[in-house]
Amino acid sequence: MEDTVKLLLCDVGNSSYHIYDAGDTYKKSVTSFNPATITEKIYYSSVNQKVSKMLEKLDNWIDIAAYVDKTQYYESMGIDRICAVQALKSAVVVDAGSAITVDIVREKQFEGGFIYPGVDAMQETYKNISPVLDYSFNFDLDLDIMPKNSQDAISYGFLKPLYSEVVSQNLPIVLTGGNAIELQKIFKNAIVNENLIFDGMKKIIKKAQLC
Amino acid sequence: MEDTVKLLLCDVGNSSYHIYDAGDTYKKSVTSFNPATITEKIYYSSVNQKVSKMLEKLDNWIDIAAYVDKTQYYESMGIDRICAVQALKSAVVVDAGSAITVDIVREKQFEGGFIYPGVDAMQETYKNISPVLDYSFNFDLDLDIMPKNSQDAISYGFLKPLYSEVVSQNLPIVLTGGNAIELQKIFKNAIVNENLIFDGMKKIIKKAQLC
Repeated sequence: MEDTVKLLLCDVGNSSYHIYDAGDTYKKSVTSFNPATITEKIYYSSVNQKVSKMLEKLDNWIDIAAYVDKTQYYESMGIDRICAVQALKSAVVVDAGSAITVDIVREKQFEGGFIYPGVDAMQETYKNISPVLDYSFNFDLDLDIMPKNSQDAISYGFLKPLYSEVVSQNLPIVLTGGNAIELQKIFKNAIVNENLIFDGMKKIIKKAQLC
Repeated sequence: MEDTVKLLLCDVGNSSYHIYDAGDTYKKSVTSFNPATITEKIYYSSVNQKVSKMLEKLDNWIDIAAYVDKTQYYESMGIDRICAVQALKSAVVVDAGSAITVDIVREKQFEGGFIYPGVDAMQETYKNISPVLDYSFNFDLDLDIMPKNSQDAISYGFLKPLYSEVVSQNLPIVLTGGNAIELQKIFKNAIVNENLIFDGMKKIIKKAQLC
């Protein structure tokens, strides 16, 4: 869809509002941003229950979820995942945010997906298990070699199982979300599309003939 | 080695003292147990820095680490992992405690290993990412089917990548640690040996001719 009209979109995650403003994008923290400061019509997807409650009260914020045919998805599936899947024909969608959601779409059919902890969440997890595991992940790790040091042992533990599961799908890999660039170091042939959810939202808007 | 002399062993993890007393075993919390209440000679392995500092001051607590040939391991590798590896000839050792350590030993040679978060740590991680991910893991999940509900999406996310990585080693799988029984639901052909670390400690003691 061409942005012939000024299109304002927002993907609300667990930690931030990701806003698309006629081609430009920016992020605002969920803890400090006041959505009422946006007075134009804005379509949004939200997986953040707290924020959703606020947005319901704002007439110019339009929940994209109302315009999605959910029959092939499941009740509690995040609307961000649905939007991302809607944007693609056949792919493994890896959305690396607070969580890393991995969704399989083949010939426009959603086949299911799983949820893995995000980079920051996993870093925190290792640190909380033991101070001796408080390392940054090494994204330049060689995943073909079984590690023999602590930093690589947690980096491999986080990355290799995810990597193996994703590549086993034998589909093009599309990365999106805040940590897409870091994960591209592991998924070397993957396409990065930081606007994937917005692409899906645009398709949904077009299909529903909302503008 | 036969337990002809009364052998007292202890494996100190991040959350508990696991004690072996001439065949019987029991656990004590690291936050409440006072190791000075044991006055007999006891061999221990510890990955808990706080507890290690206390044990160094107790003459009857003997650190097994001093008797291990560490040349094939790495400096910061947990002594519990070394003991487990020493107990086996060829296997993937999956020690499911606060962390899940996965170590590869082929023909008595340690090939390396990785560290994955433990069951409780991972549960907490998902819960902290979002309240909508606050589910118990479903260990009866069919890992051949891509999930279409939230509980299975996190259960699959936690278990399937780990499963795939472990079985890809093409070695017998030995499970130990507090969550070994739960993981056996996934690793159906694995052997559970809850005393694996003690078996390794016994071998080390025998080799060093300590008793």
